[in-house]
Amino acid sequence: MPDLHVPFHTIALVVRQNTDNIEESVGRIVAFLERRGHAVVFEEETAAHLGLTGARAMSPIDIGAHADLAIVMGGDGTMLGIARQLAPYDVPLIGINQGRLGFMTDIPLDGMLDVLAKMLTGSFQAERRTLLEGQVLRDGDVIHVGMAVNDVVVSRGAGAGMAELRVDVDGHFMYNQRSDGLIIATPTGSTAYALSAGGPLLHPSLGGIGLVPIAPHALSNRPIVLPESSLIEIEIMRGRDISVNFDMQTFASLMAHDRILIKRSPHTITFLHPEGWSYYHTLREKLHWNEYPSGEGKLS
Amino acid sequence: MPDLHVPFHTIALVVRQNTDNIEESVGRIVAFLERRGHAVVFEEETAAHLGLTGARAMSPIDIGAHADLAIVMGGDGTMLGIARQLAPYDVPLIGINQGRLGFMTDIPLDGMLDVLAKMLTGSFQAERRTLLEGQVLRDGDVIHVGMAVNDVVVSRGAGAGMAELRVDVDGHFMYNQRSDGLIIATPTGSTAYALSAGGPLLHPSLGGIGLVPIAPHALSNRPIVLPESSLIEIEIMRGRDISVNFDMQTFASLMAHDRILIKRSPHTITFLHPEGWSYYHTLREKLHWNEYPSGEGKLS
Amino acid sequence: MPDLHVPFHTIALVVRQNTDNIEESVGRIVAFLERRGHAVVFEEETAAHLGLTGARAMSPIDIGAHADLAIVMGGDGTMLGIARQLAPYDVPLIGINQGRLGFMTDIPLDGMLDVLAKMLTGSFQAERRTLLEGQVLRDGDVIHVGMAVNDVVVSRGAGAGMAELRVDVDGHFMYNQRSDGLIIATPTGSTAYALSAGGPLLHPSLGGIGLVPIAPHALSNRPIVLPESSLIEIEIMRGRDISVNFDMQTFASLMAHDRILIKRSPHTITFLHPEGWSYYHTLREKLHWNEYPSGEGKLS
Amino acid sequence: MPDLHVPFHTIALVVRQNTDNIEESVGRIVAFLERRGHAVVFEEETAAHLGLTGARAMSPIDIGAHADLAIVMGGDGTMLGIARQLAPYDVPLIGINQGRLGFMTDIPLDGMLDVLAKMLTGSFQAERRTLLEGQVLRDGDVIHVGMAVNDVVVSRGAGAGMAELRVDVDGHFMYNQRSDGLIIATPTGSTAYALSAGGPLLHPSLGGIGLVPIAPHALSNRPIVLPESSLIEIEIMRGRDISVNFDMQTFASLMAHDRILIKRSPHTITFLHPEGWSYYHTLREKLHWNEYPSGEGKLS
Repeated sequence: MPDLHVPFHTIALVVRQNTDNIEESVGRIVAFLERRGHAVVFEEETAAHLGLTGARAMSPIDIGAHADLAIVMGGDGTMLGIARQLAPYDVPLIGINQGRLGFMTDIPLDGMLDVLAKMLTGSFQAERRTLLEGQVLRDGDVIHVGMAVNDVVVSRGAGAGMAELRVDVDGHFMYNQRSDGLIIATPTGSTAYALSAGGPLLHPSLGGIGLVPIAPHALSNRPIVLPESSLIEIEIMRGRDISVNFDMQTFASLMAHDRILIKRSPHTITFLHPEGWSYYHTLREKLHWNEYPSGEGKLS
Repeated sequence: MPDLHVPFHTIALVVRQNTDNIEESVGRIVAFLERRGHAVVFEEETAAHLGLTGARAMSPIDIGAHADLAIVMGGDGTMLGIARQLAPYDVPLIGINQGRLGFMTDIPLDGMLDVLAKMLTGSFQAERRTLLEGQVLRDGDVIHVGMAVNDVVVSRGAGAGMAELRVDVDGHFMYNQRSDGLIIATPTGSTAYALSAGGPLLHPSLGGIGLVPIAPHALSNRPIVLPESSLIEIEIMRGRDISVNFDMQTFASLMAHDRILIKRSPHTITFLHPEGWSYYHTLREKLHWNEYPSGEGKLS
Repeated sequence: MPDLHVPFHTIALVVRQNTDNIEESVGRIVAFLERRGHAVVFEEETAAHLGLTGARAMSPIDIGAHADLAIVMGGDGTMLGIARQLAPYDVPLIGINQGRLGFMTDIPLDGMLDVLAKMLTGSFQAERRTLLEGQVLRDGDVIHVGMAVNDVVVSRGAGAGMAELRVDVDGHFMYNQRSDGLIIATPTGSTAYALSAGGPLLHPSLGGIGLVPIAPHALSNRPIVLPESSLIEIEIMRGRDISVNFDMQTFASLMAHDRILIKRSPHTITFLHPEGWSYYHTLREKLHWNEYPSGEGKLS
Repeated sequence: MPDLHVPFHTIALVVRQNTDNIEESVGRIVAFLERRGHAVVFEEETAAHLGLTGARAMSPIDIGAHADLAIVMGGDGTMLGIARQLAPYDVPLIGINQGRLGFMTDIPLDGMLDVLAKMLTGSFQAERRTLLEGQVLRDGDVIHVGMAVNDVVVSRGAGAGMAELRVDVDGHFMYNQRSDGLIIATPTGSTAYALSAGGPLLHPSLGGIGLVPIAPHALSNRPIVLPESSLIEIEIMRGRDISVNFDMQTFASLMAHDRILIKRSPHTITFLHPEGWSYYHTLREKLHWNEYPSGEGKLS
């Protein structure tokens, strides 16, 4: 857990681009924060699309060095992008969504100032999330490195036949898998692509990494959850047009016998949630577990 | 059902390339057929890779025009390729596998002559399989047509975000689906890619077409089976690097608002099986349903 | 399709019990129907719980003999019960739901009279649904018969080990399956229990029967869809406390070597839907396919 | 990890009943152990069915008090039974299978003496497995307690409608689930019933507990993996004929509002494997991951 510098002297704002009428909300939050004595800085792309200039625009690296907290306004995608960049710097994150609850952006825009007022005085739940880091090796050379909050995905192109991937874990051969690809997911990523591919939900405090095959040839190639201490090695055995991506943000094209090494990152992300926040509440809302109240049935 | 010209005057041979020592088996079957008075011709690629020349090499079109039967030696992939080409001509097919039972190549190389001897005198089960045909339309123009024995697959590229596909059936809106893609499968294709993606097995004599989403975003986007009379229309709503393929043999790259129209082909394929053949036997063998005899359990 | 006696001289009303304040709605519909010259009768249990008496209460058999149409007010469960009883008599059915769209009860209580006014003059879509019928045989004797709109389910008791079921189709051995049980579902039932157990959606006009194993031991024991002409035979090979039920309405306890024979019933059910009704619309509503509009994602 | 008393002075033998010709193998192993100076005792049921009498027959409790090691000959079921009984006493276990590799009985009968010779001198891999313990509460009173190596299963009877279960974790409401039941599985149990019901594989050293719904009504009620520190509480909300079982060995019938509390047991089980043992090797063998070598495909 990072050393949290309550009352968070310097706070960075990160705002999703192309959000209608967001300026008014940003204005309110900036005024609110400054009125309470916080220094406010802007992530540089945020500053650019909001038309702000001057010393208060900062790169993620500078935010990492100088900010005590980042407030992200947008969806989970916006949070995902900045969280990965700030992970090395232990800057805690608060997520404000714009109308739809997110898994990582759990404070509604409406009423956000009341919620922030409490959180900024230390009334929050801090929750740590694991990241993955990976290296792509070709002939022994590292040709790509990446970091993932959600997942590392090895997959074939649309016009290519099945990929054949050899998977070893901690030096032990697991299997040769033939499939459309393989998702290596954190608990955070277990509600994203891995879920669509048939993977289980993984509680954020489970120290686990999910391996979820995409449309595997062998029906017994089921999702498997490994301890987060695992070193996962994937070798491309066969297949054309195979690539690896990290959170769908960085990519590398792969050739036969390229290897991808994946393990838990030494860094973590810290989300701050309002008091009373519940992971299960978010799951219920996002997965519509509340829809069929007792006594009624979608199929009754 | 085609008009079967027993005793099959002209028989075409189609042999998978790159099969070690296949010449000897081909020689035996040719001698066997000629001894019984059949005229033997060779599919032109087969003739080329076997080093045969002369008038007996024929294109699939000529085989369609002149042959009464095609014998395919290889795996299901070889059968798939020639079956699609011969479909317009109603040439029945017999499949001989080379060591591994196939769904469509069900006669083992060992002992094939005894089996063929019976089949060539009319002792067989004829089984008809449905095909799909599709058109790709862009701005109202047909830019690609294809035919599929197994499946038509619309899917996204490896580095692209989810595809959004709008599906209409018989002019009725079904859904906007967000996924890696959609498989439209015949019963023949239900044991292939569609099965890996979570689709059901469809009996060959079921008049049905399976729609199987690949890693769908909405967990309730389950496989659905439609009557084979359905006209299925898929429109690309969003997504980059999307393509469609027919049996993984022909491809078209797609753009937003391209539409793919898919329906049952007027053509069918006729497989001839030995007497006593059972679809369920093939399923049991291929899906290893026999593996856990009564009283034992893989997990007991 | 039954011979539809528009304008439906005699109309039977079937109303779910224990529905608050339903009397007022029933009163309105009766007045409406009588005003238009229809004779209204009440299913006998409906009459009893509504406190009606007299000649207008009829058993399902008498409704079958005398009514030209049945209007069902309730949920899909109410419809399921009466539909199975009326199936031998070809009485078409209209379903009115009380607040929640049903798969089979698709007209909302609010505004029902306007919809009925059109339908009663012949403006409707008639849709036929298949039923299953089954016999349970012990030592060659029939010990139970049943009929199912949704499904026939063979399953083990909670405290018993896995059931082992031998399945033959049309006299061909399919497999010995070890599982919690097996669901044999019509297309109508494909959105009910079979869906929960991992089965596909089957379009109502698909001539198919779904076999969906419940928690099968062998991971390759996947759902399979057979032609509706199939004769399905299930023999209890091993297992304690096994039973079979038809639509969860009638039950029989089973012993080792009991056999269950299942085939399509000669009877069908005819649902009448308002003009413009769409099966896919119902699926979208019931399965929440509409929830993730373009550009937003539950997990984005 | 228990304090392992190499060279294991007293060794208990546990042998599956009703195994043909097992006496000869037992005789060989006893002679082998005694020749090496170990004291051999027999689990009391083993002694009974082998016709052995005298002081060397011991109850599981006495084995727990006196033995330094237990060797189990049989299948995983035999191991499961004795492991649960010995768990409180930290007696390590070696499993010898009789012809079929087990998940927990990984030494083949053929050649077992050579393997044992090495293991008894300390050349082994010790692996610890988690257990679950549970209490059933009715009106605040504990009416049943149980322990599970594989799983705790709450499920409905065959003739009953869906169960409705309320699940809370660590005092947080998770959901009301409607289903056939819920499996709470250890990693050891993740390859058993939970796998059949669609759950993921969980590596034995993952500190996790899997919750796997059986045929859930809501399609989004997917398996979830929780940290093993979780306190899971299940309340019966609705449903008839519901029961809970622990490893299918002990049972309790449940009523509405009964609650089941489940958590990790303070005890663990220690399996001893031969040097070179690999969990993944066992998975590959048991799940047939080896069946489709490169270049061949079940569906090609």
